Amino acid sequence: MEEKSKKDLPIGVFDSGVGGLTVVREIMRQIPKERIVYFGDTARVPYGSKSKETVTRYSEQIVRFLETQQVKAIVIACNTASAYALEEIEKQVKIPMLGVVKPGAKTAAEVTVNGKIGVIATEGTIQSKIYGKYIEQLKKEAQVIGKACPLFVPLVEEGLLEDPVTDEIAQRYLSVLIDSGIDTLILGCTHYPLIRRTIQKVMGDQVRLVNPAYETALELKRLLDQQNLLQDEKPVLGTNQYQFFVSDGADKFQHFANTIFKYGVLAVKQINIEEY
Amino acid sequence: MEEKSKKDLPIGVFDSGVGGLTVVREIMRQIPKERIVYFGDTARVPYGSKSKETVTRYSEQIVRFLETQQVKAIVIACNTASAYALEEIEKQVKIPMLGVVKPGAKTAAEVTVNGKIGVIATEGTIQSKIYGKYIEQLKKEAQVIGKACPLFVPLVEEGLLEDPVTDEIAQRYLSVLIDSGIDTLILGCTHYPLIRRTIQKVMGDQVRLVNPAYETALELKRLLDQQNLLQDEKPVLGTNQYQFFVSDGADKFQHFANTIFKYGVLAVKQINIEEY
Repeated sequence: MEEKSKKDLPIGVFDSGVGGLTVVREIMRQIPKERIVYFGDTARVPYGSKSKETVTRYSEQIVRFLETQQVKAIVIACNTASAYALEEIEKQVKIPMLGVVKPGAKTAAEVTVNGKIGVIATEGTIQSKIYGKYIEQLKKEAQVIGKACPLFVPLVEEGLLEDPVTDEIAQRYLSVLIDSGIDTLILGCTHYPLIRRTIQKVMGDQVRLVNPAYETALELKRLLDQQNLLQDEKPVLGTNQYQFFVSDGADKFQHFANTIFKYGVLAVKQINIEEY
Repeated sequence: MEEKSKKDLPIGVFDSGVGGLTVVREIMRQIPKERIVYFGDTARVPYGSKSKETVTRYSEQIVRFLETQQVKAIVIACNTASAYALEEIEKQVKIPMLGVVKPGAKTAAEVTVNGKIGVIATEGTIQSKIYGKYIEQLKKEAQVIGKACPLFVPLVEEGLLEDPVTDEIAQRYLSVLIDSGIDTLILGCTHYPLIRRTIQKVMGDQVRLVNPAYETALELKRLLDQQNLLQDEKPVLGTNQYQFFVSDGADKFQHFANTIFKYGVLAVKQINIEEY
């Protein structure tokens, strides 16, 4: 394929559901000329409580689907899938691939002063100890304290973004991190930036929050630029710059997406991901 | 197949995950001679927020799996799957089938005095309005008020069975039911009996709670008896009276199962349900 047309291809982004839209939002902001094909696995959400084997099988199916959409790069916009499946899938595909974990780990290692970094995420991501592995490669003396916060996703999905119940749950989950004296906290699940304010309030202003969604979009831009794959011109109107696919509940997804973006999500297509 | 050997076959029971074990527990209590094959769809849990089409497809796959286990009857031990898929699946199979909704609705229609019945359940079950449909067939003048409680399942799975946070969330969800003056409340999700005490406390002693798990085991016994399918003798030791299958996380499932049963769950097998 010629370079010109390769640049024109979309970026594939996937997540277990709607959470990855916070990553899409950052990509739209930082590289607004790019086309995006998003897949949310709403029929099998959540991934955070499922096993490595299952999350990897699901991720492989999704990558096969995205390949049918001729994407030029793939972003795993889900921490659990990045933690469990990225290394395996990187072996299988030839296009550039990026998870949300490595960019988040890199920034945390850079900004910490006292070397104590907290990670909040799903059970799966915490059990994988993946943030710790990456951070250790960059900053050997760093101390990483992980804490699974399984109620945060349901609380966000119930819309309790600023609520005494969310405050109370945040205080319980985060107290161990406050006690350990961390100065940096990675929001290791794509839903968590949506309750960023509550988390910051509980942790106190002296703790720096790292949002891997932001760092991932930055890293993606760098990667595409390196490989001469950055889109030069914004697609003309009518070319479907952003396409959304889900495995279940297209209407519900569209409704949620429209609360996240200023851009109006007009069409979401449902596919049977088990066929890939 | 001869009648004797037909009686010896197990009962198939399925759910989206662990919740259906509360139904299994009731079956074990009420018809302790029966063999049971349980399937929990832990790789795709939860069903409560997913569409009718998807829940029906998943249920059909599970029924095909249970048929390979030569079950003599099938119990859908999941309210959402009962609400969405039972009628469709009943057309496809020849063995007796039972959901948890109809037995719960029947009891509620019988015990209500003022004719005002509340239903708490997942979004899917509430949207299906299935409890209202069944209750209306039995008691035309009854008034059914449904309320989705999406945070109850995550709270139960996080172990917050008796906790101020669960109290607070219960008060918010249930206030509309208290205001409407119901005298009967159906626990329309298999997880909810595990926070029965909190629900009773919030609703007050004058409200009668109906647990469909209990009613379903009773109805199953009646149905098997009618068709001369009740097991006569308890299986001899070593015949695997209870078998458990899941689509993900066998160890985690086994751990949870052992908190629900006195009977020790020794082995849980994992299968790939997408292949059925």
